[in-house]
Amino acid sequence: MIVKNKLLNFKNKYIYQDNDCFLFSLDSVLLANFVTIKLSDKKIIDLCCGNAPIPMLLSFRTNARIFGVEIQKNIYDLAIKSINENGMDKQINILNADVCDICDDYVAESFDVVTFNPPYFKYKKDSLVNDNVSKTIARHEVKIDLNTLFKVSSYLVKNGGTIAFVHRTERFAEIMFLMKKYNIEPKKVRFVYPKIDSDSNLVLIEGVKNGKLGLKLLSPLIVHNSNNEYTEYIKTMFGG
Amino acid sequence: MIVKNKLLNFKNKYIYQDNDCFLFSLDSVLLANFVTIKLSDKKIIDLCCGNAPIPMLLSFRTNARIFGVEIQKNIYDLAIKSINENGMDKQINILNADVCDICDDYVAESFDVVTFNPPYFKYKKDSLVNDNVSKTIARHEVKIDLNTLFKVSSYLVKNGGTIAFVHRTERFAEIMFLMKKYNIEPKKVRFVYPKIDSDSNLVLIEGVKNGKLGLKLLSPLIVHNSNNEYTEYIKTMFGG
Repeated sequence: MIVKNKLLNFKNKYIYQDNDCFLFSLDSVLLANFVTIKLSDKKIIDLCCGNAPIPMLLSFRTNARIFGVEIQKNIYDLAIKSINENGMDKQINILNADVCDICDDYVAESFDVVTFNPPYFKYKKDSLVNDNVSKTIARHEVKIDLNTLFKVSSYLVKNGGTIAFVHRTERFAEIMFLMKKYNIEPKKVRFVYPKIDSDSNLVLIEGVKNGKLGLKLLSPLIVHNSNNEYTEYIKTMFGG
Repeated sequence: MIVKNKLLNFKNKYIYQDNDCFLFSLDSVLLANFVTIKLSDKKIIDLCCGNAPIPMLLSFRTNARIFGVEIQKNIYDLAIKSINENGMDKQINILNADVCDICDDYVAESFDVVTFNPPYFKYKKDSLVNDNVSKTIARHEVKIDLNTLFKVSSYLVKNGGTIAFVHRTERFAEIMFLMKKYNIEPKKVRFVYPKIDSDSNLVLIEGVKNGKLGLKLLSPLIVHNSNNEYTEYIKTMFGG
């Protein structure tokens, strides 16, 4: 079922979502807050953008032109509907395409920033996937894997440009290896912990193409307090 | 000046230290608590062991034989003095040697666990180093670098064995890359934060030689509370 939700509590903008297949989540809000955007940045692209929560959230932070790429037509349609109704279509342009193929669509090294909140789970023939194909594609590496995402990101971003993303903590070692492989130097990392005494489940990572060595590991981002309520940091981000 | 300190508040064991060149610190206590030791483990080795805080601390946790390697004769002498006076010499054996050369001294894949708290800082000709040579060797990669440490560790540890160490967070990306290079799969990581709202400065890492993929990232380890006192966790570790 298609539902219309507020994008953030303190903004009069909305997002259309299909609650049978894809709901924008905390991860996207965290990433849209985490990524470094400079005043001088002119072009940003969000890969695997889904119904475009990240492009829309980023539009609150920057006047840069924002692009997004989504492979699934039904989800792309929702993105377009939200963007048009929010009057964001002058700033945001979404392409319905396979990220694996977009090197033909965009000029190499033409973006200042690349972001992605990709499918988190490895896909094997015996993977426990959802009956819903659309959900499976959004959550599992059926259509694209991490290696390809870094390859494409590295193609798109200019030298010294930023690549920022969110992923499952359990894949962190693999991510560090792939970033090195594609000359994306990790510069800023923040681990997300559901509670202060729990293991981390998510991680926010930012790298710079051909950047200098030197990693800044930000303070732990705690999602819930001991009463299972959102922490003040998270509440502030959503706007109370 | 040589000083004699308690190893932990709740243990009647001592450590000799030269406060002009090397004082055992929180890092060693954290690592000695962090490393996984199995009941079945028979042999453990600590590289760059200094005045042997880690071998001595580990002896509280295991009956395995514990080896240590220290290149600096003056610091090695302190280790031997402490171990003998503590009556730990049946369990702990320290070798005064260069870790770079010890592949001739120990049989390949003969250890269940390798630990190290190595020199943290890269060394270049213009590095800001201490006037004190002994301190410089303990803190800077003059005699050994990370690549060699992983190479030697991977030689010493048996297949499926554990390699655990502590290092500066800023070098984390490089560490992940080197672990992959030497087929040491990161399995357990814990970031240390001086305070809950500060960046991480230290990280505890454990890998398994030829281990399966899958990283567990433990809850944030916070050293000081908002009053600049040690947190309860740290106090408990030292024994109040």
